[in-house]
Amino acid sequence: MYKIAVDVMSGEKAPEELIKGAVNAAKEEADIELTLIGRYDIINQELAKLDIDKNRVKIEKADQIINMDEAPIKALKKKKNATVNVGAKLLRSGEIDAFISPGNTGSVMAGSLLRVGRIKGISRPPIAVNFPAKKGSTLVLDNGANTDCSPENILQFALMGQLYAKHIMKIDEPRVALLNIGEEKSKGNNLSKESYELLEKDPRIKNFIGNCEGRDIFEDKCDVLVTDGFVGNVVLKTTEGAASFFVELIKESFESDLRSKLAGLLIKPYLKKVLNKIDYRQYGGAPLLGIKGVVIIAHGSSDATAICNAVKAAKNSVKENIVSLIKSEVEKNEELD
Amino acid sequence: MYKIAVDVMSGEKAPEELIKGAVNAAKEEADIELTLIGRYDIINQELAKLDIDKNRVKIEKADQIINMDEAPIKALKKKKNATVNVGAKLLRSGEIDAFISPGNTGSVMAGSLLRVGRIKGISRPPIAVNFPAKKGSTLVLDNGANTDCSPENILQFALMGQLYAKHIMKIDEPRVALLNIGEEKSKGNNLSKESYELLEKDPRIKNFIGNCEGRDIFEDKCDVLVTDGFVGNVVLKTTEGAASFFVELIKESFESDLRSKLAGLLIKPYLKKVLNKIDYRQYGGAPLLGIKGVVIIAHGSSDATAICNAVKAAKNSVKENIVSLIKSEVEKNEELD
Repeated sequence: MYKIAVDVMSGEKAPEELIKGAVNAAKEEADIELTLIGRYDIINQELAKLDIDKNRVKIEKADQIINMDEAPIKALKKKKNATVNVGAKLLRSGEIDAFISPGNTGSVMAGSLLRVGRIKGISRPPIAVNFPAKKGSTLVLDNGANTDCSPENILQFALMGQLYAKHIMKIDEPRVALLNIGEEKSKGNNLSKESYELLEKDPRIKNFIGNCEGRDIFEDKCDVLVTDGFVGNVVLKTTEGAASFFVELIKESFESDLRSKLAGLLIKPYLKKVLNKIDYRQYGGAPLLGIKGVVIIAHGSSDATAICNAVKAAKNSVKENIVSLIKSEVEKNEELD
Repeated sequence: MYKIAVDVMSGEKAPEELIKGAVNAAKEEADIELTLIGRYDIINQELAKLDIDKNRVKIEKADQIINMDEAPIKALKKKKNATVNVGAKLLRSGEIDAFISPGNTGSVMAGSLLRVGRIKGISRPPIAVNFPAKKGSTLVLDNGANTDCSPENILQFALMGQLYAKHIMKIDEPRVALLNIGEEKSKGNNLSKESYELLEKDPRIKNFIGNCEGRDIFEDKCDVLVTDGFVGNVVLKTTEGAASFFVELIKESFESDLRSKLAGLLIKPYLKKVLNKIDYRQYGGAPLLGIKGVVIIAHGSSDATAICNAVKAAKNSVKENIVSLIKSEVEKNEELD
């Protein structure tokens, strides 16, 4: 059994959508042992509405929430019974295999770092986000966990991304690239030049293809793209902004007059398919890699679909033993030294 | 008269489209004195096809081109008669007021820095790019001229961006923001935290609104957004990539079957309007600010429309005296010291 826990009190759509999504995943996959973290009364009330065997779902009491605008570490210390604290402790003790939260990202990161801990040898756990591409997808990391990075951090992101792409995304020999502002090795800032050197010479990176640029994220150019958390987060939010801008422009164009409205009606189902392709919900959240346990940061506006996919993705990471894989990869480094 | 010169030998659509675009601008605005830089024979041959009074167009001979893949400084030194060298020299001597090139961006920057020179007090001239937004546009700088920046560089970008937004984009009190990964002052990497401090306390920045995130570029949140050239260039290319990805997805959705094809036919003219809104060609290239002369870097794939708009934008910068405005702004700083 895969023991997956979900913080069902945080995020914009808590608790109803989150509980529904988690329960759906457990219904679909019989080897999931679900733990819902939050208030007993609320969770029981929601569970009553859903058609699920009560033995399939555990409840772990947590009656505090860390809000989106709270300072993570301060809040973690003050609110001992916050969902994130409870989840992290369960993960540390091995009572659960994976923890998912759509709450305050900083608090999920800090909670995981402080209470679960880093894998020995990993200095900075990164957030990995899957970006849709014309063909397949591109796993970008770090997306905001680490704002100032060293070349060594970038190398570790690449190692973890490579493992994730191979074992979870099932890509045979993942193409690993460095996000840069030109293709040539000599391009970029100091960090990218030094990171290039490290990536190029490390034998553990099997298929380093060099630099990729921002536009290549959406092409079939690389599978894993590494950068520091500041740049990664800017890329993520710029993409979100551009997507919402486009969707609005397209919608506007369908509202010009009768002719365009008719076209809008005709194309609606097809457009929906298109929008699904760029829908973050399908990717099941962003793993925080390098932690001694599976942690998935779900989008703050996650609904039932997003959480259902996040639970399945978490199960998959547990099943494929991503934590052990990262551990042995880092040990290889120690042998190399 | 405004003396505007165009490098008509560089870029993907040289020379025909570039000459046509430049000539169109001169036809539309009688106070433009046009100089075309390139090979006599080619330019004369193209001019013969166009209906323009020959006295309105000067030709400056330059029989070498710096290719896209050449190392800028080396190429500038080797190819003395390259279009970029010729243009920069004319600008320095005052024979022209503005120089436009769709060629190798690095060579235009290096040529401008070496042969025209920086305005005293400006340490790093940035490239300013106008991004379309739901309402108006957002001027982002730097977009790639300076990969490793200091907080002082960022402050200068803000000062120049503010002037450009006010005098060229005609925005009364431009909202200046720092590109960051969160709204709070405490967010971001070391560079952004230190830059925030400088921007906040400098009395010359009239309307500093704090941090903006990647997604805010496309909203009506700020008019000028500053960041280092590495991040700015990543943002630019990510946006280009996302745009091309969306357009392809939309096109695909219209090709599913008869119904969607019909919808495609109906919506085509409206979609075209939408795509025009995000068409870089309307913005007339990206100014390189802080140089002792008006320099505009045009997109490598600029066609006649793009170059026509670039010529008009260049004229506007000369007319509004952007170089003198930047000079006096920097002098204010020296008085403050």
